[in-house]
Amino acid sequence: MTTSIGIELNPPARLLMGAGPANVSPRVLRAMTAPLLGYLDPDFVKIMDDVAVMLRQVFGTKEGFTFPVSGTGSAGMEAGLANLLEPGDTAVVLEGGFFGERLAEIAGRLGATVISVKGQWGAPADLDQVRKAVKAQPKVKLIAAVHAETSTGVLQPLKELGQLAREHDALLLVDTVTSLGANHVDVDAVGIDYTFSATQKCIGAPPGLAPCALSPRAMEAIAKRTTKPYTWYLDIGLLRRYWEGGQRVYHHTAPMSMVYALHEALRMAFEEGLENRYARHRRNGRALRTGLEALGLKLLVPESSCLYQITAVHIPAGIDDMAFRTALLRQYNVEIGGGLGQFRGKVWRIGLMGESSTAANALYLLSAFEALLPRHGFEAPAGAGVAAASRALAAEK
Amino acid sequence: MTTSIGIELNPPARLLMGAGPANVSPRVLRAMTAPLLGYLDPDFVKIMDDVAVMLRQVFGTKEGFTFPVSGTGSAGMEAGLANLLEPGDTAVVLEGGFFGERLAEIAGRLGATVISVKGQWGAPADLDQVRKAVKAQPKVKLIAAVHAETSTGVLQPLKELGQLAREHDALLLVDTVTSLGANHVDVDAVGIDYTFSATQKCIGAPPGLAPCALSPRAMEAIAKRTTKPYTWYLDIGLLRRYWEGGQRVYHHTAPMSMVYALHEALRMAFEEGLENRYARHRRNGRALRTGLEALGLKLLVPESSCLYQITAVHIPAGIDDMAFRTALLRQYNVEIGGGLGQFRGKVWRIGLMGESSTAANALYLLSAFEALLPRHGFEAPAGAGVAAASRALAAEK
Repeated sequence: MTTSIGIELNPPARLLMGAGPANVSPRVLRAMTAPLLGYLDPDFVKIMDDVAVMLRQVFGTKEGFTFPVSGTGSAGMEAGLANLLEPGDTAVVLEGGFFGERLAEIAGRLGATVISVKGQWGAPADLDQVRKAVKAQPKVKLIAAVHAETSTGVLQPLKELGQLAREHDALLLVDTVTSLGANHVDVDAVGIDYTFSATQKCIGAPPGLAPCALSPRAMEAIAKRTTKPYTWYLDIGLLRRYWEGGQRVYHHTAPMSMVYALHEALRMAFEEGLENRYARHRRNGRALRTGLEALGLKLLVPESSCLYQITAVHIPAGIDDMAFRTALLRQYNVEIGGGLGQFRGKVWRIGLMGESSTAANALYLLSAFEALLPRHGFEAPAGAGVAAASRALAAEK
Repeated sequence: MTTSIGIELNPPARLLMGAGPANVSPRVLRAMTAPLLGYLDPDFVKIMDDVAVMLRQVFGTKEGFTFPVSGTGSAGMEAGLANLLEPGDTAVVLEGGFFGERLAEIAGRLGATVISVKGQWGAPADLDQVRKAVKAQPKVKLIAAVHAETSTGVLQPLKELGQLAREHDALLLVDTVTSLGANHVDVDAVGIDYTFSATQKCIGAPPGLAPCALSPRAMEAIAKRTTKPYTWYLDIGLLRRYWEGGQRVYHHTAPMSMVYALHEALRMAFEEGLENRYARHRRNGRALRTGLEALGLKLLVPESSCLYQITAVHIPAGIDDMAFRTALLRQYNVEIGGGLGQFRGKVWRIGLMGESSTAANALYLLSAFEALLPRHGFEAPAGAGVAAASRALAAEK
């Protein structure tokens, strides 16, 4: 067989303002070039412990078990559902967006009875509806929700869900893929039993790991299973013996370069200060929202329930989604996200996450929109977006 | 909650001569610092295609579907079993080592009827026994084997297994975690239907991906499933729509830094030439074997069925396994592997994989053994190991 060697690897340096991955600090990228260690090397175990401690802080848990799943955010989703649900268990799933639907899809594959609380895309769940759905079941094992719905840009309040779960002795599973690093997660205070995130959004590392946290109740529920999880790779009982305790037991070979990246990204988040980091995401996201509205664009989510790290905006009538985004990519070197699921072709999703969340990026994106929108058939008032965002930024200084 | 920032990330530069990860070229590490791209960025899709083409060549398949699973080698194992087996299917599993047992464990969790052909650890499977096991079943869906058993250092011949699978219209699944990059895999010629490998052994990249190949028969079997796989994250039908075809469909966010590393590692393998690479592993492994025997150590596997990339050696009576390996790590900065499963505390596994497979590393390891063995209670003839290995290397020039 003749061989053909691949092209030289020189990907362009894009401005990543989609739904993730976001841009990553050179410091984090450089961490991945650190020497590899054996998966049970005492020096690697120290780094694992360090990551677990930092994750406890960013997740807001003192007692919880924290570790990164060796896969992307969706692997963290599957790990939680596959370990907390047994066939025949009932799960109430809040489906107010694409990732809520994914929760329901995975829970269904695992043999659980899935009660979907279908909400309007672009709004948080109706808590009365959730409460009714839970009460209507003889026994709910798990309530599953998305904290920051990446497909719509909605922040789901969690406090009431935590109370509801406790009242019904159910477990609360929360997707914090897009919130961790930009919003308070507060695992202990809310009463979250399992949460998973991803490294490539507001945490500031490349994709490849799913940081997770489990409450003692969740660990107890796993210990009490009557069946083994279908998945061996994501079996949390086994993973815990590798990530915790005095005598570590080999499970799989940890992707140490990714662990190094997560370690460095978490250090940077603490150096910045978590509150400062949340404020930065809010400030830049608010400026972007102000600018987009000044251009005459309609935002999907009102500020009362919006995420500042990802802003969904209706694509104006007459604009060709792909043609516009391709122009943005080719002429401005900027990626924004298209719509997912029922929002395909209907909204754009503009991310200001992690390293990508800067005032400069918000202004540059608005400047690009001001130039491109008229060429694609939407008359935006020249200069209005950048000017409005700039004023919003100045007001916060 | 008070925060405590992690320690500065400065892992020591170890010589990795265990069962993987192996050392990685700075060129491959550097590839991970390349700018991230969106998961559907046209420039990233080009890199994905390039990886798939290079994987086809290293796996030896023209028609097969090749891609890397976004997880470590064990995720590749689970992906194959979870997509090819449905509950109630019968799988014949060759269990001649730790990873053969893992195949059986995962197949069992998936609800398959597992027929284990238990072989002696340290020897290839008895083909008559396998044939009898297959014939005794009304219908075998899958035969599963480990090509290069990392726990013992045995190479399992595959040709007859391919024939047997065809005769019985069964699928052949092969673990090539430790063989890919050091041995011919020959997916098409053997008739392998699904194989998975890992990036951190003889391919020369950090851990984090599981390169896979599927035959057209395997894809057909997946298309004909009557149930969805339990796993959504590892659902190959969905993954294929992301990795192949004109219109890519989002599934999960690919860990692009790992894909970059694999891309660069594969380019380096082709630059070296696959035959040269196999010969390098053989040459250095043979020198190591010669040297270990000259020191009076007993090898587990005779050369007729050994792997050159990993050599299992019996721990001499009276030597404390952990004390010896700790001394090697702390005084010589070298990691070797301990025994797994029934070989725990009984064998050492010395790897010469990927970048770690050099003549210098083989000689240095032997030199360290010569110094340490007597101090730990085993009288090895001074200088004999290095001298014998050196002669073996010279003879091959």
